[in-house]
Amino acid sequence: MNLYAVIMAGGSGTRFWPASRRNQPKQLLSLTGQRSLLQQTVDRLGPLAPPERVLVVTGSMHAEQVHEQLPELPPDNILAEPMGRNTAAACGLAAAWVARRDPGAVCLVLPADHLITDERLFISTLERAAQLAAGGDVLVTLGLTPRFPATGFGYIETGEVVDPDPPAVSRLAAFHEKPDLATAQEYLDGGRHLWNSGMFAWRAEVLLTELERHLPELASGLAELAPALGSPEQGAALGRTYPGLPAISVDHGVLEKSSSLRVVKADFGWSDVGSWEAMGDLWELDLDGNASQEGPVLALEAKGNLIASGGRLTALLGVENLVAVVTDDVLLIAPRSRCQEVGRLLEELKVKGREEYL
Amino acid sequence: MNLYAVIMAGGSGTRFWPASRRNQPKQLLSLTGQRSLLQQTVDRLGPLAPPERVLVVTGSMHAEQVHEQLPELPPDNILAEPMGRNTAAACGLAAAWVARRDPGAVCLVLPADHLITDERLFISTLERAAQLAAGGDVLVTLGLTPRFPATGFGYIETGEVVDPDPPAVSRLAAFHEKPDLATAQEYLDGGRHLWNSGMFAWRAEVLLTELERHLPELASGLAELAPALGSPEQGAALGRTYPGLPAISVDHGVLEKSSSLRVVKADFGWSDVGSWEAMGDLWELDLDGNASQEGPVLALEAKGNLIASGGRLTALLGVENLVAVVTDDVLLIAPRSRCQEVGRLLEELKVKGREEYL
Repeated sequence: MNLYAVIMAGGSGTRFWPASRRNQPKQLLSLTGQRSLLQQTVDRLGPLAPPERVLVVTGSMHAEQVHEQLPELPPDNILAEPMGRNTAAACGLAAAWVARRDPGAVCLVLPADHLITDERLFISTLERAAQLAAGGDVLVTLGLTPRFPATGFGYIETGEVVDPDPPAVSRLAAFHEKPDLATAQEYLDGGRHLWNSGMFAWRAEVLLTELERHLPELASGLAELAPALGSPEQGAALGRTYPGLPAISVDHGVLEKSSSLRVVKADFGWSDVGSWEAMGDLWELDLDGNASQEGPVLALEAKGNLIASGGRLTALLGVENLVAVVTDDVLLIAPRSRCQEVGRLLEELKVKGREEYL
Repeated sequence: MNLYAVIMAGGSGTRFWPASRRNQPKQLLSLTGQRSLLQQTVDRLGPLAPPERVLVVTGSMHAEQVHEQLPELPPDNILAEPMGRNTAAACGLAAAWVARRDPGAVCLVLPADHLITDERLFISTLERAAQLAAGGDVLVTLGLTPRFPATGFGYIETGEVVDPDPPAVSRLAAFHEKPDLATAQEYLDGGRHLWNSGMFAWRAEVLLTELERHLPELASGLAELAPALGSPEQGAALGRTYPGLPAISVDHGVLEKSSSLRVVKADFGWSDVGSWEAMGDLWELDLDGNASQEGPVLALEAKGNLIASGGRLTALLGVENLVAVVTDDVLLIAPRSRCQEVGRLLEELKVKGREEYL
């Protein structure tokens, strides 16, 4: 089985502002340790895919940084989108690229900005998904066992169990949008719903066939692009064709319409590192629950604070449950519970014309 | 009348940590505007004393910075103490220096780290004090009209009024240490107590005579030093003699024992800029009472915060009454009400051996 890892690095998330910026999205940041989330993602895939079979789909404004962070990747393996066209186009582009070399090869599609704690289980689960994809005309999606009644994720409802041996394989019953808390609790209690992870496996030719069926406009655009992929014409061809592609998620555009879905239940420790608040689980805490990305913390009667001080000594006196972030040009302070509202600050900056801080 | 301004710049206050540091005391900081408190003090005295008649008494570790901040001062006018020996020695040293040129000249002694809002009234009040000192064998102290029942200052109790025309001149009844709140309120209500400002006027020869009477050990040390003052030997002589001088305040050592005191009542707006909390009165506030030393502030549902962000954009979301300070190597966050406790952080740093942050 030939296997390609397709890393989706197109995001320009704002929830780690001011560390994440327009020109420095979350996946390029070193939020934990020395390596960026993108680099950690590539490192983690080492046992499955050598660098020449790792593709990164990213925005053209970030392609240079991706190249710098991943010098081991052949330059052609960085697919630079002139603009975002959502995940159906990104997955289709990668499948078309892979199909030029080996239509039967399996694409493992993975987000660039997640953290995985049990890497061995991660690898063995991906191997199972890849085997399924290699052995049948199926689209495989990974569903994560919920750990709490999350309202911030979509859910996959599993149907008939095809193989109960872990990682268990099921047919799909339904996709569900982000639920309210009561519904999320029902999902958690029922045991048949999994978090929609954004991780997939399929043969390149299988996805392209499904695109022809469900998103013919996208499929024909990709067919037009295909001859240029992996050639010196690649960039110019993307610039011509990409703007005309429909922008729709692979979930809505393909998976929800397909009858060939399999769900692999994933139990490896996982975090989508959704906001500063999530760093409370990922950074080392002191006895009072204060955590710092880097740099010493001196806390007197202070607890539960999350600090990214850019390596500075953080001196906390009598403050609780704050997030504080210092970058070269911004200082952010907010309660941990309101990290998700950072986007409101960015809206305000736009209104005030302070684009330099976005 | 020959008049010399003697600026006491020996402090190494910790209450503006982490902006103030061992090698960067408060008086050398630009807490408001572009000029440091020391520079502002010299600027303010322009109408009374040209640079060649401004003396600065400072610690030898800060002499270089004082010289850089005040290039207009002749180098000999910066009196570098090898170590602090409290204010009696500092005042005596300056008086001895002045007496070498003109024993009858008046010394106006002023702290380097205060802010004055009504500069015209400040100048006319100092002129009154200088006239008193020039015209009699008296030690003149300036007492500030209390604006609130402060427990952080010593008080001067005025006695018989010598001249009621403002700025009023009185004899001294008594000095009082920092009072408790009830006593401070009595002082405020009674109208006879003034804040002890640390601002004085006397002829050089008068102070030296009083030192001979009340602090003979200090007087003889200064007499030993005197021939070297203003000469190339000055630094070496200070290094030899200064360590042996008694360390006592001019208040305790001289003023409390002298029978030749006059008090001038001062009503110019004044702040000793005692801690970050004081900056709430000195920085420009937004409508929600947030203030920044420099750099824009974006505040959503945030009020009463005082921020020194080093010029960064400060983004505040849902936080109240905090002080936050960012320097090259430290981030400090505390409630405004606990600014005075910053010294506890410094103690903790000492215990941990993190001297680099002091």
